[in-house]
Amino acid sequence: MHIVGELINASRQAVNDAIKVRDVGFIKDMAKKQADAGANHIDVNAGVFLDEEPAILSWLVQTVQGVVDLPCSLDSPSPKAIEAALAVHQGRPMINSISLEEDRYQALLPIIDSSDMKVIALCMSDEGMPSTTDERLNIAEKLINSLQQKNVPLDNIYVDPLVQPVCTNNDFGVEFLNAVEQIMTKFKGVHTMCGMSNISYGLPNRKLLNKTFIAMAVAKGLDGAIVNPADEGMMSAIYAAEVLAGRDEFCMNYTNLYRGK
Amino acid sequence: MHIVGELINASRQAVNDAIKVRDVGFIKDMAKKQADAGANHIDVNAGVFLDEEPAILSWLVQTVQGVVDLPCSLDSPSPKAIEAALAVHQGRPMINSISLEEDRYQALLPIIDSSDMKVIALCMSDEGMPSTTDERLNIAEKLINSLQQKNVPLDNIYVDPLVQPVCTNNDFGVEFLNAVEQIMTKFKGVHTMCGMSNISYGLPNRKLLNKTFIAMAVAKGLDGAIVNPADEGMMSAIYAAEVLAGRDEFCMNYTNLYRGK
Repeated sequence: MHIVGELINASRQAVNDAIKVRDVGFIKDMAKKQADAGANHIDVNAGVFLDEEPAILSWLVQTVQGVVDLPCSLDSPSPKAIEAALAVHQGRPMINSISLEEDRYQALLPIIDSSDMKVIALCMSDEGMPSTTDERLNIAEKLINSLQQKNVPLDNIYVDPLVQPVCTNNDFGVEFLNAVEQIMTKFKGVHTMCGMSNISYGLPNRKLLNKTFIAMAVAKGLDGAIVNPADEGMMSAIYAAEVLAGRDEFCMNYTNLYRGK
Repeated sequence: MHIVGELINASRQAVNDAIKVRDVGFIKDMAKKQADAGANHIDVNAGVFLDEEPAILSWLVQTVQGVVDLPCSLDSPSPKAIEAALAVHQGRPMINSISLEEDRYQALLPIIDSSDMKVIALCMSDEGMPSTTDERLNIAEKLINSLQQKNVPLDNIYVDPLVQPVCTNNDFGVEFLNAVEQIMTKFKGVHTMCGMSNISYGLPNRKLLNKTFIAMAVAKGLDGAIVNPADEGMMSAIYAAEVLAGRDEFCMNYTNLYRGK
């Protein structure tokens, strides 16, 4: 499971406050906590700062990579911000995210073209958010094809089929899960990736729904997630799902969780 | 989700002790606890008592049905025990279980023939326990066909694809999950049903694995389970999985869990 740590996002108040005063210690602690908990990429998002976004995103990358030996997930639709961050980034970043929305697509595709970066391909278009499995598959196919034409290998593409709240439509869970299965089956070698928390919007005990949903998605083939890796309940559900999906050789990662406990 | 409450099983020491002294209160409490927690059938098993099994199984049925208005799951391979239990049973029982093992198959088929009972069809044959999806599907197909020839409708058949420990073979989880999906797809209208706990044999934090696995199985179509309905962790995972699988209209069952809490 490819884990993107979601915590360093300026839409969260504590992170926003820390950025405003350039609190290096706060950002480093948050990066280290996520790295120690098993993150593979550290997401950085400074979208709310508008004109300052490029400067802040590159500061975040430098701050994070000053303390952990991990690549970042550059979370912005802005080519200026992405380019500023790329100028200081070490290693292989992830672009979060390209979509089929025309402005975002045209802005980001040239940056991704023929690079070796990983890229999240979000199932969203100018026609709005997809509801059905077929709508997701249709967008995924267009994004995968255009990325492949730009020499991005399937193994670098993480399709995000877009989780929507099951309380607004009882079928939103199933439509997402079936999209994961069909994308993973139809495009062998591609990855899938998503944030979970929208699924439980408006319902009680959201943590239970989020971790149950990720296990169900792993059963359908999901192999990436944008989560808080310091959330022990979520991470133990992911480790459990990985064992049960046959992805944890000799059950080593799972049993290591419990060593010494 | 069709819930079979598993607690009244004489292989459990406390139940065994209670049966020996015909402790009506103990059995009734256990039946009531499972009914209150959402069981649809109450499993009764007296297999360890051998020659006494028919008398004890019918006593268990009468004791259970003396306190709860639910049918029983008659858990025995012995036609004598099943017939003794059926003689006193009220309502529509479940037979747990027929299999493709020749002795069991020949003994139970005449009892099930043209009845309106529900029946668990266990994916086991004289060649041993199935390992792969295909082996499970092969047994399931033979059992479904022969039951249908004996006028048992698909809606009365609960195929148990047989859970095996993932610690003995990393693929046992996936092979089971894929069998559920293929059985539910190939035989539209049939049900699937299983006990969970074998999956986690030999591994730490078994409860986490059991409830994670049932969520994954629900994602693949599982619509029945033999569980302890008084296990709140397991039942809340089932309710969560049902919402997320689009089987809980307006999320009513799930949100009702949290009313007043």
